[in-house]
Amino acid sequence: MLKLYFAPGTCALASHIALAEAGAGYAVERIDFKTNQQNSPDYLAINPKGRVPALVTEHGILTETPAILAFIAQSFPKARLAPVDDAFAFAQVQSINSYLCSTVHVAHAHRVRGSRWASEETSFADMKRKVPETMGACFTLIENKMFKGPWVMGGQYTICDPYLHTIATWLEGDGVDIAKLPKLADHHRRMTERAAVKKALAEQQA
Amino acid sequence: MLKLYFAPGTCALASHIALAEAGAGYAVERIDFKTNQQNSPDYLAINPKGRVPALVTEHGILTETPAILAFIAQSFPKARLAPVDDAFAFAQVQSINSYLCSTVHVAHAHRVRGSRWASEETSFADMKRKVPETMGACFTLIENKMFKGPWVMGGQYTICDPYLHTIATWLEGDGVDIAKLPKLADHHRRMTERAAVKKALAEQQA
Repeated sequence: MLKLYFAPGTCALASHIALAEAGAGYAVERIDFKTNQQNSPDYLAINPKGRVPALVTEHGILTETPAILAFIAQSFPKARLAPVDDAFAFAQVQSINSYLCSTVHVAHAHRVRGSRWASEETSFADMKRKVPETMGACFTLIENKMFKGPWVMGGQYTICDPYLHTIATWLEGDGVDIAKLPKLADHHRRMTERAAVKKALAEQQA
Repeated sequence: MLKLYFAPGTCALASHIALAEAGAGYAVERIDFKTNQQNSPDYLAINPKGRVPALVTEHGILTETPAILAFIAQSFPKARLAPVDDAFAFAQVQSINSYLCSTVHVAHAHRVRGSRWASEETSFADMKRKVPETMGACFTLIENKMFKGPWVMGGQYTICDPYLHTIATWLEGDGVDIAKLPKLADHHRRMTERAAVKKALAEQQA
């Protein structure tokens, strides 16, 4: 059975929702960031990067959200979570998820993870001040140029939707008002109503 | 025919090498960063993010290196650039490329692109000072925990190899001595000798 390592409030929620959407059999295990469990020897043996998510499969362990999401989509084709038989359409899905991973999540991370890229408190404060601008720019670009509607890729719900939704849950803390982005605000509201999202959140709070 | 928009010295080299490895028919067009051509209206119509690479295909335009690389591998299966028929092995490839994209490339970008995430010159200088440490840590992790050898994923050359190689070309400028990482130094040397790498570099300098 699949096993997902997660921490609440992190991007692991995207993979968690996708597992629930896929109808997969899975277990979840919480990693406690408050005690720095992600850097414990036991967890580093699972993911040497000391991050979540990590997905334990019968074949081995996977890390990195875009890779885990694509694996879930390809492993549960009946759930139709990605156009796995169309190389171009699949690449479009990967493109959105790559952008979320490398640009949007990274912009957000500068709010509280500045020590990854700098050393001085003044730099951390400077980074934190810029997050409303950078995250606002990312989500405005998604609203205007990427989001097809009603789901990210158009009529079909895909693995892009739980990933976008997960990052959108960070916007309030990042100082971005999603209400000013009508398509994304509507997406966010519809996502919160999905059974798989409710299931994943309940499992993370259990 | 495929058309790749690139700028010299950028991560677009990874997609360029992969096209050459695949034996694809392709054209390349250089975007001039010195005149900020990446943010010109003409180019923003191709890639609203104002970045390279962008790959024009008969189906539409693709952006983001991991997505372009996966598309090339899936579109030219005879080149065997990824295990496209094995969801787990393919996800392992995607995992490496996601890490390169979201962690390693991002760490590098703090050397000269600090204005993406901060506003003060003191912050940019602080970020720049930390790059040898962050890039050194990334490549040490790749050397010790990710790289299987002789290629990134083991015996088979994949789309991870041109991506790792491209980022490794930045290490000298980032203050990291690849000679201290014997497996990656050997990989880098063997990559520079490949015909596809020489072809791509020659096309970028033409």
